[in-house]
Amino acid sequence: MKVVYSEDHRLHFPQGELYGGEFVTPFERPSRVEYILRELKKRKMDDLMAPARLDMKPVAKVHDRGFLEFLESAWREWTEAGFRGEIIPTGFAARGMRAKKPNHIDGKVGYYILSMETCITAGTWEAALSSAAVAQTAQKLVSSGASSAFALCRPPGHHAHHDMYGGYCFLNNAAIAAQGFRDAGAKRVAILDVDFHHGNGTQDIFYARNDVLFCSLHGQPEDAFPYFLGYRDEKGTGKGEGFNINYPMPPGAKYDVWGKALKAALGQIKRFKPDALVVSLGVDTFKDDPISFFKLTSEDFRTYGATIAKAKLPTLFVMEGGYAVEAIGINTVNVLDGFLNG
Amino acid sequence: MKVVYSEDHRLHFPQGELYGGEFVTPFERPSRVEYILRELKKRKMDDLMAPARLDMKPVAKVHDRGFLEFLESAWREWTEAGFRGEIIPTGFAARGMRAKKPNHIDGKVGYYILSMETCITAGTWEAALSSAAVAQTAQKLVSSGASSAFALCRPPGHHAHHDMYGGYCFLNNAAIAAQGFRDAGAKRVAILDVDFHHGNGTQDIFYARNDVLFCSLHGQPEDAFPYFLGYRDEKGTGKGEGFNINYPMPPGAKYDVWGKALKAALGQIKRFKPDALVVSLGVDTFKDDPISFFKLTSEDFRTYGATIAKAKLPTLFVMEGGYAVEAIGINTVNVLDGFLNG
Repeated sequence: MKVVYSEDHRLHFPQGELYGGEFVTPFERPSRVEYILRELKKRKMDDLMAPARLDMKPVAKVHDRGFLEFLESAWREWTEAGFRGEIIPTGFAARGMRAKKPNHIDGKVGYYILSMETCITAGTWEAALSSAAVAQTAQKLVSSGASSAFALCRPPGHHAHHDMYGGYCFLNNAAIAAQGFRDAGAKRVAILDVDFHHGNGTQDIFYARNDVLFCSLHGQPEDAFPYFLGYRDEKGTGKGEGFNINYPMPPGAKYDVWGKALKAALGQIKRFKPDALVVSLGVDTFKDDPISFFKLTSEDFRTYGATIAKAKLPTLFVMEGGYAVEAIGINTVNVLDGFLNG
Repeated sequence: MKVVYSEDHRLHFPQGELYGGEFVTPFERPSRVEYILRELKKRKMDDLMAPARLDMKPVAKVHDRGFLEFLESAWREWTEAGFRGEIIPTGFAARGMRAKKPNHIDGKVGYYILSMETCITAGTWEAALSSAAVAQTAQKLVSSGASSAFALCRPPGHHAHHDMYGGYCFLNNAAIAAQGFRDAGAKRVAILDVDFHHGNGTQDIFYARNDVLFCSLHGQPEDAFPYFLGYRDEKGTGKGEGFNINYPMPPGAKYDVWGKALKAALGQIKRFKPDALVVSLGVDTFKDDPISFFKLTSEDFRTYGATIAKAKLPTLFVMEGGYAVEAIGINTVNVLDGFLNG
């Protein structure tokens, strides 16, 4: 399996992440990728490949133009306004307020952000473009006949909406890849999101579409970020109704519960008859993850990799979250290993 | 003029305020009140009085019960969750997300907050209650026949919605006072908000009511906090239509512009024939305010105090913002002095 990877992810490394009312060392940090690379090398699965230049056409189909322009110019506007920290806004379009975009950069950031742990820094836009290019290059491998590929994306993508960023995500890599599959001729694409957190961004992007089925297994929103999306009754809208399926699970869920949800999702995917499968691969379902509450063991990751393989679909793995950094390599590569070798 | 004041405001003193992506010493700090007290003493206008115990009935009429319970328990829940900083959440109910209250305290804070510069601390609830009591006690003086009174409130209140806090505000002191006037027999109450920032909270609370006229003079929301409310076309709803009047003004506005808006607002108030007037008194319209963009001089504050007096209404001044701390005393007392002495 080819692994698409770029060192440009390192351009995004905020000094701090807002957590519990303090700035802490970001949970979403560059070393996450190093641990995965190390484990791939250890198991001789490091068939690395650099991404091609990003084709913006699929990006523009899943993201709002004003949002893309904002991400590109935000750092310049922020520093020109005299602000000295990395980008976190004060105000935002809270409940009952108006969704009108202000001129002032602090307000504009408030318009486009969906959660406050996520800083934009000097290198964020370049890193986000590189991460999307990683996903797109891997998608093109699969579109061209590879049975699978691994996009070692960072920053992750699945929390990024059509026109909002947050949850460590700026561009929605999995959505860009799914759109890429469609543009390359796939009639139907399924996205299976196994990250601990609800893939609210991917849901948002495809909510009214019936050509992309979205299934997300995640911590129930009553108790887990992003808190305000991810309920079971979110099923899609218009012609997209029935093509969005959420599997929220309670604190402490182990593989006996999680694996059943996976099988249910794979059943839905089978009925959908997709031409390609995108797996939003977060490994923060791990029992020792510092900001999550499922209890999967490292061996469970191998098991579910093998389970996903049984769908026998052209499969693109897109890296999302996972914050138990010492274990992230083992768990991520266990999924790929299980997928390839049972 | 009686000045109602309590030292309990000091219980609310966050370590830091999120500003420009950094924690800075809060602009809304206890010394603001000390400067006002010093200037009152200097001019022998320090006819101080302690607040009576807060009657919660008017509070419960303008604020949501769940919101009040949240403010009371937030610090305990936050610290019990193991968070170590003062309260700032990560997620919130962003545009297009669901306005459903989560169980987890981080999400619950996200549900009730409207802007991120505002920390809840160990002493915040007690200070907010005390500030509301200050407003209520001063209102009762006026309801009982005093021609005017000054509620030296801190924390301020006018950004606090029916069920959201932010912009340094927790309980809406001016709204609680206006409701107090109504409950004491006033048929109609006018609120004139001269703080630099839009009184979004007061607007929210009375938006569907025709017994309270709300007029706000403020920096236009395209460029100024709270960014997502305060436009001219927000006129009230239902039977409240026509009873909410916004006067947004552009960066750099001086008294020639601001004073015209004041006269227009006072004209509307005159036509409304209120039994009492509440002035949400922020002095951040001052030319040297560090986070605002109007250009009023210290002398302008005296001028507009005298202008307000011409309405010849029982008048309650409720302290709101103002962050140029060396000048806050002079500017605030200039308004009162102008009101009393022309």
